[in-house]
Amino acid sequence: MTTSSRWSTAASEALRARAGFALTHVDPRSTPGYTGGKPDGVEDLAEGATRLGELQERLFAQSVAGTAEGSVLLLLQAMDTAGKGGIVRNVVGAVDPQGVELAAFKKPTDEELAHDFLWRIGRRLPEPGRIGVFDRSHYEDVLIGRVRALAPPEEIERRYGAIVDFEADAAARGIRWVKVMLHISREEQRTRLAERLDRPDKQWKYNPGDIDERERWDEYMTAYQVAIERTSTDAAPWHVVPADRKWYARLAVQELLADALAGLDPHWPAPDYDVEREKARLAAT
Amino acid sequence: MTTSSRWSTAASEALRARAGFALTHVDPRSTPGYTGGKPDGVEDLAEGATRLGELQERLFAQSVAGTAEGSVLLLLQAMDTAGKGGIVRNVVGAVDPQGVELAAFKKPTDEELAHDFLWRIGRRLPEPGRIGVFDRSHYEDVLIGRVRALAPPEEIERRYGAIVDFEADAAARGIRWVKVMLHISREEQRTRLAERLDRPDKQWKYNPGDIDERERWDEYMTAYQVAIERTSTDAAPWHVVPADRKWYARLAVQELLADALAGLDPHWPAPDYDVEREKARLAAT
Repeated sequence: MTTSSRWSTAASEALRARAGFALTHVDPRSTPGYTGGKPDGVEDLAEGATRLGELQERLFAQSVAGTAEGSVLLLLQAMDTAGKGGIVRNVVGAVDPQGVELAAFKKPTDEELAHDFLWRIGRRLPEPGRIGVFDRSHYEDVLIGRVRALAPPEEIERRYGAIVDFEADAAARGIRWVKVMLHISREEQRTRLAERLDRPDKQWKYNPGDIDERERWDEYMTAYQVAIERTSTDAAPWHVVPADRKWYARLAVQELLADALAGLDPHWPAPDYDVEREKARLAAT
Repeated sequence: MTTSSRWSTAASEALRARAGFALTHVDPRSTPGYTGGKPDGVEDLAEGATRLGELQERLFAQSVAGTAEGSVLLLLQAMDTAGKGGIVRNVVGAVDPQGVELAAFKKPTDEELAHDFLWRIGRRLPEPGRIGVFDRSHYEDVLIGRVRALAPPEEIERRYGAIVDFEADAAARGIRWVKVMLHISREEQRTRLAERLDRPDKQWKYNPGDIDERERWDEYMTAYQVAIERTSTDAAPWHVVPADRKWYARLAVQELLADALAGLDPHWPAPDYDVEREKARLAAT
């Protein structure tokens, strides 16, 4: 099970936000670690789907056998139009839906607001042997939460530490975090919003609030920078994926996901029954 | 949006269990309504995935816009190895996972057993605008429930009527039922079980209980016959899909699913905002 030789540096290494990380230094049109162009990327994405599917099937088999110890949790955060939906459709969509637990976090309900911000998140952590996908997450509470001052500054401040503890605790219980920020440029967002407004089959993806958030672009970038700085840990590192080129973003997230799965080293579970005896039983029917 | 001309009779018509239906008259190797062979079927499955994906995206768009009135619920029942998993992977897996709600019903938990058998089912009915998939269902309670006498005969008897009422009620609230029995032959099951026992990457799919159920084959066929007779209604008809040929079963279920979606006639929702005004707002940012 090898990775394409077109990666000069593993995606998990090339994209990881380490100490001293600066979002302003990441070019949204760049393709870190990957030496190929778009046609190569499309080819590698198709090949990678096979690898991902195989890893996922082994993990799922372990979950059925009750021997799965870990799970992988892909967490996606991004500005509007950055391509979360495309990742879910094209990367996650390539594996068996039976092994995937997808959670889309919307504006909190009244019930959710009555609890701590991590309450609704904890309830959707994936079971062992599954791939969890978070479309938005608890980071909304330090992103829009911060930009729109939806909570007092000291509460926002408290949340960074609470997130670090929460994620470390989940990691200790077997969850491999794949935290991804899809990083799109302000200019590319304009192009994509304009396309949504132009096409009758895309207009449903647009809502006027998108512009309100767009007008706070710089504040959001600051909120992302702070969140990444404060919460990119060994137990749950952040990866910032340049997303102006959709083919690259999909390929990179697929690679991150496959590496996390490979890290669990899933094996076909040994049968917990006597194979020869069962063959004899079957023959007798 | 047309269907392949290789269907001489629509799958929904060719496979429907009507009054007088007899399971014993269905040949598991047959390909009702379809005039092509395997290579045609594989080609039509790929084309059908595009049609299904388009229909599903429109329906999903309506659910986002809050204008979706209906949903489609694919319910799969079958003897072991008949191919439920393959249908989920290859037919359902071709559409955007964001629009799918998959529920796999296992042996009931203690909590579930403390309620009426339909309690856990009602909680998993799909939301408007979604495709629900039931991998097994409330029919287990009149299939294994009957064969293994897990409930008294009068309770089993009561359940048929309760199911008809339950399904009619759900249909009245916008759920389009696509109830499918994948019909495999006893001989084909032997071949597939033998393959599972032979291959280390398949052994996890086997469990010794499969043989116990296989030994009751005729009783199961009777239980299916009775269940289909008693619960194939206009609101929630049964379709019996010959399943010895995997390519046909997948193609037929895809066709049934696409037809049900097309029946909802999903349209791109009209924007609930002023498009020109939003274009101007975007241009100003």
